[in-house]
Amino acid sequence: MKTLIRGGTVVNATGRHAADVLIDGETIAAVLAPGSTLLGFDVAANVDRVIDATDRYVIPGGIDAHTHMELPFGGTAASDTFETGTRAAAWGGTTTIVDFAVQRAGERVQDGLEAWHAKAAGNCAIDYGFHQIIGGVDVDSLAAMDSLLDEGVSSYKLFMAYPGVFYSDDAQILRAMQKAADIGLLTMMHAENGPAIDVLVEQLLAAGKTDPYFHGIARAWQMEEEATHRAIMLADLTGAPLYVVHVSAKQAVEQLAAARDRGRNVFGETCPQYLYLSLEEQLGAPGFEGAKWVCSTPLRSRAEGHQDHMWQGLRTNDLQMVSTDHCPFCMKGQKELGLGDFSKIPNGIGGVEHRLDLLYQGVVTGQLTLERWVEICCTTPARMFGMYGRKGVIAPGADGDVVVYDPRGHTSIGVGRTHHMNMDHSAWEGFEIDGHVDTVLSRGEVVVDDGQFLGRAGHGRYVRRELSQYLT
Amino acid sequence: MKTLIRGGTVVNATGRHAADVLIDGETIAAVLAPGSTLLGFDVAANVDRVIDATDRYVIPGGIDAHTHMELPFGGTAASDTFETGTRAAAWGGTTTIVDFAVQRAGERVQDGLEAWHAKAAGNCAIDYGFHQIIGGVDVDSLAAMDSLLDEGVSSYKLFMAYPGVFYSDDAQILRAMQKAADIGLLTMMHAENGPAIDVLVEQLLAAGKTDPYFHGIARAWQMEEEATHRAIMLADLTGAPLYVVHVSAKQAVEQLAAARDRGRNVFGETCPQYLYLSLEEQLGAPGFEGAKWVCSTPLRSRAEGHQDHMWQGLRTNDLQMVSTDHCPFCMKGQKELGLGDFSKIPNGIGGVEHRLDLLYQGVVTGQLTLERWVEICCTTPARMFGMYGRKGVIAPGADGDVVVYDPRGHTSIGVGRTHHMNMDHSAWEGFEIDGHVDTVLSRGEVVVDDGQFLGRAGHGRYVRRELSQYLT
Amino acid sequence: MKTLIRGGTVVNATGRHAADVLIDGETIAAVLAPGSTLLGFDVAANVDRVIDATDRYVIPGGIDAHTHMELPFGGTAASDTFETGTRAAAWGGTTTIVDFAVQRAGERVQDGLEAWHAKAAGNCAIDYGFHQIIGGVDVDSLAAMDSLLDEGVSSYKLFMAYPGVFYSDDAQILRAMQKAADIGLLTMMHAENGPAIDVLVEQLLAAGKTDPYFHGIARAWQMEEEATHRAIMLADLTGAPLYVVHVSAKQAVEQLAAARDRGRNVFGETCPQYLYLSLEEQLGAPGFEGAKWVCSTPLRSRAEGHQDHMWQGLRTNDLQMVSTDHCPFCMKGQKELGLGDFSKIPNGIGGVEHRLDLLYQGVVTGQLTLERWVEICCTTPARMFGMYGRKGVIAPGADGDVVVYDPRGHTSIGVGRTHHMNMDHSAWEGFEIDGHVDTVLSRGEVVVDDGQFLGRAGHGRYVRRELSQYLT
Amino acid sequence: MKTLIRGGTVVNATGRHAADVLIDGETIAAVLAPGSTLLGFDVAANVDRVIDATDRYVIPGGIDAHTHMELPFGGTAASDTFETGTRAAAWGGTTTIVDFAVQRAGERVQDGLEAWHAKAAGNCAIDYGFHQIIGGVDVDSLAAMDSLLDEGVSSYKLFMAYPGVFYSDDAQILRAMQKAADIGLLTMMHAENGPAIDVLVEQLLAAGKTDPYFHGIARAWQMEEEATHRAIMLADLTGAPLYVVHVSAKQAVEQLAAARDRGRNVFGETCPQYLYLSLEEQLGAPGFEGAKWVCSTPLRSRAEGHQDHMWQGLRTNDLQMVSTDHCPFCMKGQKELGLGDFSKIPNGIGGVEHRLDLLYQGVVTGQLTLERWVEICCTTPARMFGMYGRKGVIAPGADGDVVVYDPRGHTSIGVGRTHHMNMDHSAWEGFEIDGHVDTVLSRGEVVVDDGQFLGRAGHGRYVRRELSQYLT
Repeated sequence: MKTLIRGGTVVNATGRHAADVLIDGETIAAVLAPGSTLLGFDVAANVDRVIDATDRYVIPGGIDAHTHMELPFGGTAASDTFETGTRAAAWGGTTTIVDFAVQRAGERVQDGLEAWHAKAAGNCAIDYGFHQIIGGVDVDSLAAMDSLLDEGVSSYKLFMAYPGVFYSDDAQILRAMQKAADIGLLTMMHAENGPAIDVLVEQLLAAGKTDPYFHGIARAWQMEEEATHRAIMLADLTGAPLYVVHVSAKQAVEQLAAARDRGRNVFGETCPQYLYLSLEEQLGAPGFEGAKWVCSTPLRSRAEGHQDHMWQGLRTNDLQMVSTDHCPFCMKGQKELGLGDFSKIPNGIGGVEHRLDLLYQGVVTGQLTLERWVEICCTTPARMFGMYGRKGVIAPGADGDVVVYDPRGHTSIGVGRTHHMNMDHSAWEGFEIDGHVDTVLSRGEVVVDDGQFLGRAGHGRYVRRELSQYLT
Repeated sequence: MKTLIRGGTVVNATGRHAADVLIDGETIAAVLAPGSTLLGFDVAANVDRVIDATDRYVIPGGIDAHTHMELPFGGTAASDTFETGTRAAAWGGTTTIVDFAVQRAGERVQDGLEAWHAKAAGNCAIDYGFHQIIGGVDVDSLAAMDSLLDEGVSSYKLFMAYPGVFYSDDAQILRAMQKAADIGLLTMMHAENGPAIDVLVEQLLAAGKTDPYFHGIARAWQMEEEATHRAIMLADLTGAPLYVVHVSAKQAVEQLAAARDRGRNVFGETCPQYLYLSLEEQLGAPGFEGAKWVCSTPLRSRAEGHQDHMWQGLRTNDLQMVSTDHCPFCMKGQKELGLGDFSKIPNGIGGVEHRLDLLYQGVVTGQLTLERWVEICCTTPARMFGMYGRKGVIAPGADGDVVVYDPRGHTSIGVGRTHHMNMDHSAWEGFEIDGHVDTVLSRGEVVVDDGQFLGRAGHGRYVRRELSQYLT
Repeated sequence: MKTLIRGGTVVNATGRHAADVLIDGETIAAVLAPGSTLLGFDVAANVDRVIDATDRYVIPGGIDAHTHMELPFGGTAASDTFETGTRAAAWGGTTTIVDFAVQRAGERVQDGLEAWHAKAAGNCAIDYGFHQIIGGVDVDSLAAMDSLLDEGVSSYKLFMAYPGVFYSDDAQILRAMQKAADIGLLTMMHAENGPAIDVLVEQLLAAGKTDPYFHGIARAWQMEEEATHRAIMLADLTGAPLYVVHVSAKQAVEQLAAARDRGRNVFGETCPQYLYLSLEEQLGAPGFEGAKWVCSTPLRSRAEGHQDHMWQGLRTNDLQMVSTDHCPFCMKGQKELGLGDFSKIPNGIGGVEHRLDLLYQGVVTGQLTLERWVEICCTTPARMFGMYGRKGVIAPGADGDVVVYDPRGHTSIGVGRTHHMNMDHSAWEGFEIDGHVDTVLSRGEVVVDDGQFLGRAGHGRYVRRELSQYLT
Repeated sequence: MKTLIRGGTVVNATGRHAADVLIDGETIAAVLAPGSTLLGFDVAANVDRVIDATDRYVIPGGIDAHTHMELPFGGTAASDTFETGTRAAAWGGTTTIVDFAVQRAGERVQDGLEAWHAKAAGNCAIDYGFHQIIGGVDVDSLAAMDSLLDEGVSSYKLFMAYPGVFYSDDAQILRAMQKAADIGLLTMMHAENGPAIDVLVEQLLAAGKTDPYFHGIARAWQMEEEATHRAIMLADLTGAPLYVVHVSAKQAVEQLAAARDRGRNVFGETCPQYLYLSLEEQLGAPGFEGAKWVCSTPLRSRAEGHQDHMWQGLRTNDLQMVSTDHCPFCMKGQKELGLGDFSKIPNGIGGVEHRLDLLYQGVVTGQLTLERWVEICCTTPARMFGMYGRKGVIAPGADGDVVVYDPRGHTSIGVGRTHHMNMDHSAWEGFEIDGHVDTVLSRGEVVVDDGQFLGRAGHGRYVRRELSQYLT
């Protein structure tokens, strides 16, 4: 199958060009000057399919480097399977996800990774990779880290939150980082001071403060700033590069910025929810409604200015990229587990479908340049996690993962409108967005076009990732 | 003329690919997967010339955004003409320079620009653009700024140094920045506190401290930090983006970093001399030898750690790019004017020829990634100064400005070795560098190849620049 | 005359004690344990006068180190003479002022100082000293600095504002600071970028923005931050200690804090108006009313949080003391000069009478400790300006300058209430303050008691000051 | 007993005065102008004893707020009893110590405090107070904190170091700080990341790196900076004032400075060893010699500049005071426990005797003013720990704790010279110090005079302390 995407504007992280893109089979074969007549050879006449991208942006397929399909959590499991979740991702122009395989204390790392392969294999509409959660750092799991790179897993994640579940203490973090520095793995960190937060949770519940809002109070920004700094110092001591997930507090961004100003390989990701939503408006919605937006780190106070600071961090590159932390739970039967006790609400927001659109909105409002939009959604995720070359760029040899994006289109988000995730509600209900994902190709195959899903479960392949290509 | 560059690794600012590059006439026509057989069409068989780039890097032609050919200064003039200077640039893989047209107090801006056009036209081996120095901010010159963009000049430069020559006081700077913010011009700033420095100069000379070394003492880093902060605050007040030229003091970088952390469009350039050379070693050389390295801002103390901090700033993107501030003077008859009085030594170092090689050395030593080398030497200069698309990237539609670089080659710098600038000495005498510029194409024409200059005066064309493409 | 102040709580900068104070003639002779029976000797029985300070604070007389009595400014002169101004000061518990003798360009420093002596001699109700304004730094005025210390003038002031009036450029500042560092004088600085501000003034007026409010817009905080940093860097270069007067912008405090964190002898003063009043409320009052509060630096925006930051700076000792910058002008015939042109409104607020009371309010509201109140109003001014030992402390050998302050008293400020300054309005009209100045002694003589002024013009003597005692 | 100290210069935290001091019984009765003839009454003729302080400084008795007499540690106990330790303190001009009562996990706080009272009562040469170590934060110990203030204990200490011994995790710290904020206790913190350090210790030992030097490597400054920031953030969250003990890393001082710049009640103490001694010189002494200087936090690298930064921190008040952390162990039988394993060397340096002299050396070298010396050694310790009024100042009503200090005297430190601590070596062996403690009075009684100890065990009384008087 040979495809020519013609007449569009190719946008990459450093600029934009009028150019045509030729995909031969699964791979981009050439990027051509408009017109596609090459030394007299008529390219369009020799392909199977021509996609007209006039007045459209042609961008690399989106990469969502933080998803949790089918994640068991809090006595239930994330409501999207790899099948439903990757299909929704495709709808939104995301052509690669990196999900988290889980190892818990006492379990074998290899078993965790295998289990996640089993969940994903044959079910995905788009390509997928894995990070490895190490929920129990010990002699065995440290040893198992050695083989992760051979498995195509070049990053792993630790938790400073969730004592008794995924939590690592500082001794464990130090040992894991030493190992990671030694073999080149990128350390991802959930940076919240879990033991302190758990005290606050207990005290709030004891005081009868059980509404979802108090989830945000318990997880105070001070405890995100604290853990962020602690992770930075342990990284400094060990020489391990560090990637902090779902940054939501401006003070955490300031810690990242300070470390980066000192030349450290320290990175931060934020998520659409921290750019748009707030403690006061969503988490503090009347009654139990706020449960929809219970996630950790939590939504932050708009009065304190965190949201604006996340946009600024994206502009200054103190935050390098945006993932969704997609971890969907239905209200019915899932979020409801926390009625009367916010600490029992499963943590997570679904958003894998809307990342590109929501971030394009930043271009519309002047928060981001067009190039920066591509960089934070597509290119940097590929570089950060060792997929660049195949993913994250429109260049010969790369996978034919391409999105044709219509800047003059429109997207209405919400149940019954644009909503393909397996959730009974949308965290983004009612958002009206400029811009529209017209056509999505995954490895040369059109999976979404003109409001139709044309892909299939099983098309998506496992992406073996290499070492991070973003280190300085 | 159709040229195929085959078998190399194309490096751009975000990554590298095995790819072939097809240039048709003056312009890149396609970037192709290796092999160059496109849908059965044999590209190589249909071109005029095939350049074998096996084991080489294929990068965009270098852009040196800060040169001073034929600049009248201190009773003499920079010793490179546009002809000799651009030829030397080509030798070193630089395919575009941006030189500075000069307006002085009482002169018309248009006249200055015209005069520089007259110097360059028909004489350049490579393409060239102009920034406009406004040495006398007044009603007329402010009005004249309105037409600069139409002339293809999207940036202008002010001086906080050199009272009585190019100096602008803060009132003048404020007015110029207001105008620039209004019409979109990028403000470039020589940030040193000239009035204070002149006092120190006078006092040192009066004390019999006349050697070149005292040039560095007089121009204390405190006065660079001070002026950098002042320029930032005036930019903040007016909303004007700011680009600080030839940053050499670590404290100045810290001021830039702080402003950038606050989300400001503030940028900094450093030069190879501030990365490698020092107050103690070069400027402090015995006798009058140090005159070779008299430039402003001056070489800084290695003991104070400025050089390491410049490299770090390039990594952290608190410094965005590297230019040469090429302003060559011979010792004989020029630098000698300052025998017995360092203040009479013409300020300037020649280096337009060696920027790519010297910076590649940073890749060799691990200071920079390969991608960052391309970014700071080629891509960001193009974006910063409104040339991206045509310059600074290997992509269809871009000018055929390409360098084939051999990472396993070697370059010996010095008079009688690699040295094509019109100078009787080299500031870089004796530098032995890994890496070698093998082949250089300018708008599709091979101008340097295999140790031979194949270009010609007059090939180079004036580049009309657009607004900066680097703002956030 | 022997006086015993009995039964009070003596408060100094580090703590408080129940103690009695014996003044013998002009000088404190002893501080005694309550009861005042010393080894059987009944002190109270041997004095001429016993002042009952039960339930009162006994504190050192206030020192207002920044006043401008009879200052010629903008075609008129400050409305308080040394007689009326020092009488008002005494009413408010201030027993020493330091006023500014003025030298302008072309004038002799000695003449300026002599002229101020002539104005003050024989007219003051309390003691007074002089700083020297150097409005024209040149060879003569620099030479004249040598004799200032012999004259009892250990500090001088430069202006980065007011071009054409008091303004010094950076070359002048550098030379003056070099001299000051050499001989030990403390450099005081009005830190606003005058040349830039004058451009903004001109543009605002041209745009018809002539109301007093625009005085605050023209004098943007960016230009205070800028000048503060510049002064710090020039001080750093020369080794001169620096004291920045009337700090009003939080960003200026941050610059001071940063310099102090680096161990520099850099100090800042704020004034009551910057703690309580704002751009929006006072300067922006309807019509011409705002003229009452036109002073430079200007009142700042409350929305931007400057006022809170001034209080914080006083707590953190990033601001060391509070003066009034007392420079009164009547509305009638004086402020009115600026009707229709804010730039013609004489700059200044009268407040010498209310400093102690207004700052005590900070103790009431928890912004300051009682000890810090004494420190910033009495002790640090004495140390900063070389008067400690005689002034600023209750200790044997010190001048008998003492205030008996009633924390349960009340003070109503305003014309017709507490208002003894020669002004037709009060900048503090309507302020109702907890606390009351009950009794004031100047060199052992009661000058205010029980709502009566008992002092006299001519009691006040010139204070010859020594080098600053506050340097580290 | 009535004593007059005559002819000296009384130095306090804000200045100095020629003054005489009259002590009546245990208490200062008056501070008098020199000459001591009060209204004709001849004071000298009416006292029992006159001490001639001509050409001497008369200062408040020193307060060492951090000592560990008889502390059980590492299988042995600190070698100074309260008798020997307080006697040595008196020799050095220290008239009050605050020692640490210990509670361990599972023990009752009351029992710990009682045990320390039992050790001290009847044995001390000078006055003494107690801080309470809470080594096991739990429901019982938290409840017990309520009664500490009634016991005269207004401060308690937690450890982020020493897992399994005194260590508190962040949940425990949070709970304790909440309680402390509620009732007003000052939280003292040993800020080192113990769990991480223990990993490094284990790894170093496993690698055969067993010399004392590696104690300093294991306890990296990063882990002190980290814990300092963490403590600050937990304090910020709870509103608890924080006092960090034995700060030795410049980066920790920077964290304190940053918190203070934000207006937080965060304080830091350093110790003489961190001002003078280093990792390279002392801890790295050949063989096992370095064991003498094994303490935690450890001596830091001089090449990294920590020592200079400690002096600077004392000047900038980012460090408020100097204690000794006196915790003496003999080489013979004690330090030797760690032969072949640095982790078994009892942690501690003896210095209670030399603090005043060592810090006075800072006055001699220009690091501190005379007033600052008194402030950091005498006045601030009293204010910080709720003893001011009785201690830390020369004022009527205060205890007669006075030191007559001869600035022209000389002190030779070392075994067989000035050395009264119960140790077989001195950490300060060979230090030759300008200045000399001539006479020491404790509550009006001369305990040291003219090179003779005149005090007695049992003279010292327990000091019931009030809430900190240093908060802003």
